Amino acid sequence: MKKVAAGMDIGGTNTVMGLVDEKGRVLARAGIPTRQFKTLKAYIGAVSGTIRELAGNKYTLIGTGIGAPNGNFFTGCIEFAPNLPWKGKVPLAKRFSKALRCPVILTNDANAAALGEKLFGAAKKMNDFIFITLGTGLGSGIVVNGALVYGHDGMAGELGHVIVEKNGRPCGCGRRGCLETYCSATGIVSTYVQLTGNCRNETAADSIDARYVFERARAGEEQAIEAFRFTGEVLGLALANSVTHTSPEAIFLFGGLTRAGRLLFGPVKQNLENNLLKVYRGKIKLLPSRLPESDAAVLGAASLIWNEKNTL
Amino acid sequence: MKKVAAGMDIGGTNTVMGLVDEKGRVLARAGIPTRQFKTLKAYIGAVSGTIRELAGNKYTLIGTGIGAPNGNFFTGCIEFAPNLPWKGKVPLAKRFSKALRCPVILTNDANAAALGEKLFGAAKKMNDFIFITLGTGLGSGIVVNGALVYGHDGMAGELGHVIVEKNGRPCGCGRRGCLETYCSATGIVSTYVQLTGNCRNETAADSIDARYVFERARAGEEQAIEAFRFTGEVLGLALANSVTHTSPEAIFLFGGLTRAGRLLFGPVKQNLENNLLKVYRGKIKLLPSRLPESDAAVLGAASLIWNEKNTL
Repeated sequence: MKKVAAGMDIGGTNTVMGLVDEKGRVLARAGIPTRQFKTLKAYIGAVSGTIRELAGNKYTLIGTGIGAPNGNFFTGCIEFAPNLPWKGKVPLAKRFSKALRCPVILTNDANAAALGEKLFGAAKKMNDFIFITLGTGLGSGIVVNGALVYGHDGMAGELGHVIVEKNGRPCGCGRRGCLETYCSATGIVSTYVQLTGNCRNETAADSIDARYVFERARAGEEQAIEAFRFTGEVLGLALANSVTHTSPEAIFLFGGLTRAGRLLFGPVKQNLENNLLKVYRGKIKLLPSRLPESDAAVLGAASLIWNEKNTL
Repeated sequence: MKKVAAGMDIGGTNTVMGLVDEKGRVLARAGIPTRQFKTLKAYIGAVSGTIRELAGNKYTLIGTGIGAPNGNFFTGCIEFAPNLPWKGKVPLAKRFSKALRCPVILTNDANAAALGEKLFGAAKKMNDFIFITLGTGLGSGIVVNGALVYGHDGMAGELGHVIVEKNGRPCGCGRRGCLETYCSATGIVSTYVQLTGNCRNETAADSIDARYVFERARAGEEQAIEAFRFTGEVLGLALANSVTHTSPEAIFLFGGLTRAGRLLFGPVKQNLENNLLKVYRGKIKLLPSRLPESDAAVLGAASLIWNEKNTL
């Protein structure tokens, strides 16, 4: 039977799963709403059952990788994740390993995506890079010497919570001025609302989202273009500061906001370059992720297993 | 014959050398003014001769480690160091290797000191830490997964050039608002001068230095105490941001400014803790380096060799 790794991405709304072969092909997919279960046990039972069904008699499951917000690689726990239904520290790796009878590795979802880029994307030949996810918030995974940086406690790579503005915008983490309050789908909406005074979509009469800001910018609206420029200004400087830490070969941008293409990449690139220390100038590639957006989460999670296949 | 590694620290004023055994004991020391030679060749000849003399017939030299500003581990070159007499890229590792007939490893001086802390200091059991040198400028070395972070190009760990204030104080690097313009001996003097309007030492009638600010603070002068508090405020926030990158077990502070003890460590610690993301709070140790200040540079440089002794 063909060997596969399961990749599982646990989001606040949906849990998506897939079976991935060694070359990064997604052979089967499924999804389950994360919040429809009364107990953690019921959730684990349903997700495990779905993965077993996907594998059937066709594939041998060599392990399951899990990407989840606030996932700790060392403990295999999700720790105090504000957008998930379970409180405190939840030992998900252990529970799933029992249910699926296979090795389970868990980490932060952005870390998993970074590893996916290394194994199956555009970073195959890179040993040092930074991976940034621009979604509702800003996530990150840092690769140094060919390996993900987990840090002392398994929680490294939280660049969304670099404080870029003292007493700046309030952040969900309880502090102020975090990078993700400026550079994320939520952040760009805040910027646009500040610039225009509008918080409702004029045509659809509902709240403004990042896609709306993008459409307005594409239609040439000055304030929407300025919202992207400002986002790039803040992100470019923050990334220039990150470069002084690990001197990466490239910085990858991933996630919904990157669909804006040049509107986003242009100002980020310019502000990154302008703020770089001389020794780094002209050296750091700013690249879009090459993971297909629809499968990136599953590929990232599965890469946790394929990356360790010789040690499992 | 007893095996030793030579450690060499190249500074703008002096080049110091020493022979170090595997346990981190400095068995012999010497120093030479860096600028007294007309040519690079004469400099290399004199320094190599001194090291050979130190070793004599008593010690076998297994290799030489060099710590130098703007030292690149990968190329073995010093690259565009503003305070050294040689311009452009200087292939020092290669030249010294030829002169001394032994392996030579070169890196940035702060990187070398960080490795010294790991092999011979207080970080022996630590795999993830950040090492900060507070001298004329601010240098840093970052250890991740037990190894120094060199980055893609050998130039990682330049935290002195994190921009902490847009359009802030002018920096020697040509940009503005770099961390080292606030948090270094030079930085605290600027702060003190700004606070007091004085730029001359009242008693000695010469320019104010960091030691003077320290003495005034110890004597209870409010503005001098405020200069330390402000330095700690800026450094504490910058370090909290660095923690989001590599989640270290500890941050070490080293260098002249740390002689101020609690005057410096107090405000840094407080501002670090207050600015940390919740998942890191109460976890990150802020520690003074345990390397003896007089031998730290030599120990750090020699540790480059002892760290690689199995692969040389």
